[in-house]
Amino acid sequence: MSIGFEIDERVADIARRTTEFVRNTVLPAEEASGGNVHAGPEPLRRRLQEAARAAGVFAPHAGRAWGGLGLDLCGQAVVFEAAGYSLLGPLALNCAAPDEGNMHLLEAVATEKQKERYLRPLAAGETRSCFAMTEPAPGAGSDPRALSTTATRTGRGWRIDGRKWFISGADGAAFAICMARTSGTPGDPGGATMFLVDAANPGMKITRNIDTLDQGLFGGHSELVLDGCEVDDDAVLGEPDQGFAYAQVRLGPARMTHCMRWLGAARRAQDIALERAADRSAFGRPLAELGMVQQLLADSEIDIETGRAMLWRACWELDQGRPAAQHTSIAKTYVSEAVNRVVDRAVQVCGALGISGDAPLSRLYREVRPFRIYDGPSETHRWAIAKRAVRAARERRAAR
Amino acid sequence: MSIGFEIDERVADIARRTTEFVRNTVLPAEEASGGNVHAGPEPLRRRLQEAARAAGVFAPHAGRAWGGLGLDLCGQAVVFEAAGYSLLGPLALNCAAPDEGNMHLLEAVATEKQKERYLRPLAAGETRSCFAMTEPAPGAGSDPRALSTTATRTGRGWRIDGRKWFISGADGAAFAICMARTSGTPGDPGGATMFLVDAANPGMKITRNIDTLDQGLFGGHSELVLDGCEVDDDAVLGEPDQGFAYAQVRLGPARMTHCMRWLGAARRAQDIALERAADRSAFGRPLAELGMVQQLLADSEIDIETGRAMLWRACWELDQGRPAAQHTSIAKTYVSEAVNRVVDRAVQVCGALGISGDAPLSRLYREVRPFRIYDGPSETHRWAIAKRAVRAARERRAAR
Amino acid sequence: MSIGFEIDERVADIARRTTEFVRNTVLPAEEASGGNVHAGPEPLRRRLQEAARAAGVFAPHAGRAWGGLGLDLCGQAVVFEAAGYSLLGPLALNCAAPDEGNMHLLEAVATEKQKERYLRPLAAGETRSCFAMTEPAPGAGSDPRALSTTATRTGRGWRIDGRKWFISGADGAAFAICMARTSGTPGDPGGATMFLVDAANPGMKITRNIDTLDQGLFGGHSELVLDGCEVDDDAVLGEPDQGFAYAQVRLGPARMTHCMRWLGAARRAQDIALERAADRSAFGRPLAELGMVQQLLADSEIDIETGRAMLWRACWELDQGRPAAQHTSIAKTYVSEAVNRVVDRAVQVCGALGISGDAPLSRLYREVRPFRIYDGPSETHRWAIAKRAVRAARERRAAR
Amino acid sequence: MSIGFEIDERVADIARRTTEFVRNTVLPAEEASGGNVHAGPEPLRRRLQEAARAAGVFAPHAGRAWGGLGLDLCGQAVVFEAAGYSLLGPLALNCAAPDEGNMHLLEAVATEKQKERYLRPLAAGETRSCFAMTEPAPGAGSDPRALSTTATRTGRGWRIDGRKWFISGADGAAFAICMARTSGTPGDPGGATMFLVDAANPGMKITRNIDTLDQGLFGGHSELVLDGCEVDDDAVLGEPDQGFAYAQVRLGPARMTHCMRWLGAARRAQDIALERAADRSAFGRPLAELGMVQQLLADSEIDIETGRAMLWRACWELDQGRPAAQHTSIAKTYVSEAVNRVVDRAVQVCGALGISGDAPLSRLYREVRPFRIYDGPSETHRWAIAKRAVRAARERRAAR
Repeated sequence: MSIGFEIDERVADIARRTTEFVRNTVLPAEEASGGNVHAGPEPLRRRLQEAARAAGVFAPHAGRAWGGLGLDLCGQAVVFEAAGYSLLGPLALNCAAPDEGNMHLLEAVATEKQKERYLRPLAAGETRSCFAMTEPAPGAGSDPRALSTTATRTGRGWRIDGRKWFISGADGAAFAICMARTSGTPGDPGGATMFLVDAANPGMKITRNIDTLDQGLFGGHSELVLDGCEVDDDAVLGEPDQGFAYAQVRLGPARMTHCMRWLGAARRAQDIALERAADRSAFGRPLAELGMVQQLLADSEIDIETGRAMLWRACWELDQGRPAAQHTSIAKTYVSEAVNRVVDRAVQVCGALGISGDAPLSRLYREVRPFRIYDGPSETHRWAIAKRAVRAARERRAAR
Repeated sequence: MSIGFEIDERVADIARRTTEFVRNTVLPAEEASGGNVHAGPEPLRRRLQEAARAAGVFAPHAGRAWGGLGLDLCGQAVVFEAAGYSLLGPLALNCAAPDEGNMHLLEAVATEKQKERYLRPLAAGETRSCFAMTEPAPGAGSDPRALSTTATRTGRGWRIDGRKWFISGADGAAFAICMARTSGTPGDPGGATMFLVDAANPGMKITRNIDTLDQGLFGGHSELVLDGCEVDDDAVLGEPDQGFAYAQVRLGPARMTHCMRWLGAARRAQDIALERAADRSAFGRPLAELGMVQQLLADSEIDIETGRAMLWRACWELDQGRPAAQHTSIAKTYVSEAVNRVVDRAVQVCGALGISGDAPLSRLYREVRPFRIYDGPSETHRWAIAKRAVRAARERRAAR
Repeated sequence: MSIGFEIDERVADIARRTTEFVRNTVLPAEEASGGNVHAGPEPLRRRLQEAARAAGVFAPHAGRAWGGLGLDLCGQAVVFEAAGYSLLGPLALNCAAPDEGNMHLLEAVATEKQKERYLRPLAAGETRSCFAMTEPAPGAGSDPRALSTTATRTGRGWRIDGRKWFISGADGAAFAICMARTSGTPGDPGGATMFLVDAANPGMKITRNIDTLDQGLFGGHSELVLDGCEVDDDAVLGEPDQGFAYAQVRLGPARMTHCMRWLGAARRAQDIALERAADRSAFGRPLAELGMVQQLLADSEIDIETGRAMLWRACWELDQGRPAAQHTSIAKTYVSEAVNRVVDRAVQVCGALGISGDAPLSRLYREVRPFRIYDGPSETHRWAIAKRAVRAARERRAAR
Repeated sequence: MSIGFEIDERVADIARRTTEFVRNTVLPAEEASGGNVHAGPEPLRRRLQEAARAAGVFAPHAGRAWGGLGLDLCGQAVVFEAAGYSLLGPLALNCAAPDEGNMHLLEAVATEKQKERYLRPLAAGETRSCFAMTEPAPGAGSDPRALSTTATRTGRGWRIDGRKWFISGADGAAFAICMARTSGTPGDPGGATMFLVDAANPGMKITRNIDTLDQGLFGGHSELVLDGCEVDDDAVLGEPDQGFAYAQVRLGPARMTHCMRWLGAARRAQDIALERAADRSAFGRPLAELGMVQQLLADSEIDIETGRAMLWRACWELDQGRPAAQHTSIAKTYVSEAVNRVVDRAVQVCGALGISGDAPLSRLYREVRPFRIYDGPSETHRWAIAKRAVRAARERRAAR
């Protein structure tokens, strides 16, 4: 093993087919639907996923046992970026958030029985799912330890009570993976447990779908109430009180897969800007020859290339099974901000067109903004990055 | 006269009443309507303008002869910022774009007869108007000289042919001030003429309302077709072939009034962020005591204060009747970018709330972005700023 | 009074003469000496100050009773910027740090006897002075309350013990204004007293002159030791235990005068860049027509103009005797950073020339950097700005 | 081959020994000499290089035939960063600019005879060299095609006439690789030839050593005059008229090795800042717990990690022999700017200490600035990056 940036033959082949599939099948569907998955009908999802399966690019991340292609994170980095070129691409490949992260979590933690019941149909695209962790203030937000939803023992299982919000994809999901506190009090660093809660459970209700800046997620972002929500013992995912640890199992890679998909969106915005700059003139010269436009275009190339290099690094560390928190924090922070800059510049290059619905840029502008907040806001990641760096400096000194 | 930042007693009084009016009357109306002027019914506009008149804050910019308060630009800077605190505030005071700029233009250039016919009802809030200059590529965009709509002599007047887009407020406007080329060819620095075209003119048609990132303008942004649009000689505004010069008469102050209103929006976003930081805790401490949040808040205070100081400077130069192109370009570029930064930071401070529709931030985030493109994109202004600075340096040297 | 940016006739006249004086007398002296005041001989200072007196521009800030021109801060803002165009300009006008701030402090706080003894020769340029507040860690630094130098009562006065560093201008100064703790312990918000200590006092010694990035200050930055330094009771400046309050009297305006001088330096860097861009070609076109160069030039114009507008605002607030801490913090933070950006861009525009000693840019690059640390680092000011903004938000809410 | 970030065993071993060697031998020598290579005596260079040889880390980049370790660029990336941790490290390992780039060029292009005469002693550290391409305006600068030094045929060779400046390391070099125009006129994209000119040649004279912001290069930056400088035919390096192509052979990797060394300097600045933040308190809390300090520290970690990932990517492309101009332009632009940001932040974290000579930060601050200009200013690279991106977009479209 050594330093290298060669993409494996098999991965390159899947990526090529994904790119072709996105161009020929997904982009036309996006155009037809206004890219509006939020309001999109279930049949569109079914049809696109059928086509992805036919193109041999369905569920690239899921294990082969579950009908997927079994790619590791480095492989996913290449393929998901290709999929992310369209807002509908990840949905078509069944690798969109939050399902993709939930599949990963279930593969890692669930019992065989739970896998058959929840993972198999999810990986096959027959169901959707959600991950119910975030709570309205003062509950679990950028600080997950503030978790205040509780699960208390009943005779034959648990009763969950609390409120959740910004639960992506909840509307239409077959089940939720729900974090609740089984010991300790809000602020404690432990004591959380994950539960598999069926959508049909009468104790869990969607109280509203939140109107948000982004519109790209199937099912949107919902607010849930868990009110005397009773579940059996076999609804516990993994061990009780280990929920925060499992959340890390899910969040480390999930942050990276977010980056991959958004990098594809950034690439698309930049391609639109490049084509515009190549075609359009102002002040008697092609835009592409105006220095300030060149600077916008160059800065976006720099952002995309550096972001991709850093993302691959973090993915490789995770693939090696090494502690990768510092690398994933850096990649998430950098890529989320880089992607925002790229889209913002593309809007600027395209001018009035950029802010109209005639190009997908204004839509992308809305979609990428929340990514600097979701999965840990930039400030929380920077705080963690600095803390780890200071700790490492102290250890280096102690070792001298 | 000397350097000073004291607000005149009368202006301060109008501003105080505006602030109170916005808080008590406009913000509740904004909340009730979702701030969505675009879809807002005409009655809302009428009702708010009645209330503004009752509060003594109606049409602060318009001459007293036309029912306004006759403030100069320095006075407008103070009052419009107070009005801009709500997205509906400028509409309520009848000082929203594009009507406000059109009133200014008509006062400066129109004949008495034209004033009675177009300005009087406009200043009174009985009608709305639009300014039809921008064209789809390769026509007049960031480079107005690319104007390609033509007006040709007929027996009894002119026939206008061409396409316009991004014409703000066109839907529902009683008339358009329409730029057309009466001599020369696209790219020539002269040869434009302004025409007053009634909405009822069968030769002018709205072909669609453009879906844009921003939603704040009454009437939205429309695409127009002028197809054999015949007008009489007295439809000419000012002198023929002087259209580009009049456009500067309109655009210089219009850029500044945009800045004033958006500065009010920035102030509001910052106030929301400050209240959130004061109320909410994370990681066991109030947000307002976390250093990275303090940095976001401080940077926004800096942006608002420096932007306001620069804006007042440019307004004062215009009020003195001095050549102020450099000052207005700098103020427009700086304020438009500062306002975007302020709103972006407020979104970040508020986290999930910031991107939801539960606070007006996600709405403001969409509204302020186009301002870096409208009225000359930042790049065009920077180009002009640099050119003037280099020319001044050459002149200084020649004088030595 | 109202909003205005007109420069008073008298101030404009002094500024014009200062500009002329700097161009004809100071810049040639700067060139001859390599701008190196640090190593500069005392005769140069004497000669330049004589010439400034002859030109009628000497000591613009000092009261007329002390031989100065008695300008308020708004007037100083205009004249000091003109002086700051050369690194030697402020020295020539006897308005360089730290003497200028010390004169202000002495005028405000000293007894008549102290004024005659210390202020009169200082204002006349016969002596120089220093302000001994900063201490090496863990003493008084960005947090002045950490003051650990002590002054203890003796029979006939006080004995001062402690270490000071980064004491600008100490080498060659006739006296120091020295902050020492007369009550409380390091960290307490009160308990400091200011003492006038003659350079001849055997208890105060310069232990070394610190090698620093900047080289512009006459006398450089020194480290002092106060070891059993005995002074009489009449060495106390103002009231005992009021030192921190007096420090604010000095620092508020001193921050602003720093900004004024550095703004002049920024203007000079930008002028060099503009001339270079006007003269030099690359890739077959004048630099001044290359878009990325235009962007650098425009951004610097924006920085200078916005910085000046903000600075004038803060000066005006101080001149009115209003609480101006928020305005001065904002002006200091913004101008110090803007000045650094301007000089950095000028270096970039000038390329190899910019980093050579053939233009003064590499020298300016070194001189302006510490300004983001001196007089409160940007982080300390941002912390204070945010705190005040949050407090104001809380008060606004309480008032509703 | 696949994506990977594992460092080869042998490279890791050399890097480990380099780190140890720098810490135990080079840093003490740097401290003793004030890091001032510029004025440093030749014996210091000899002694450090002896020690490096003894430590088994001498000339990591040079071929084994020339006494080096024969590392490819990916290997150099790891080892040079370790060497760059001290300003004297690259000199000690004989991998400093410009010698390192000249060795690479000679290995690639020189005849066997030329290699024996010039490369062997250079690789062994017995001689030093320089690369004489840059000329004062309007000659070859950021645009090499402006080359105006001429070489004209004589009976037995060539006569070179022209002026060069910013020729790094010229003072004390045994020979220069000198670019001169053998056909065409300034501005032509071809017609340059490289010549090996001995320092003893009476036609080549150093006219002055330029005083520059950076002080780190042995021999500094000199101005040369070539006045009737006669050389034989075997002084031609490679083929006549191929000089611009060879310059690319040299510059592509040379840009990357610059990045490697400066990344080491950035790492050092950040380590100083981290230790300071861990040790020092302000406002009653350790610096390392203040949010704004954490942000500075985190941003620098992000800059270093993303810069390194991008650098490795570009090195790998070069090692594969693929066209890597886009990757190297992006890496050079990004790393040079990132390194400047990192050092600037470290200065800020360390406050007064950061700008004093008591820590190496003020020195590093001066050293890294020119790197955004040397080897192609950021603007030139951005221009090239944008052009390539637009061209690629056009090709992609043509292929559809």
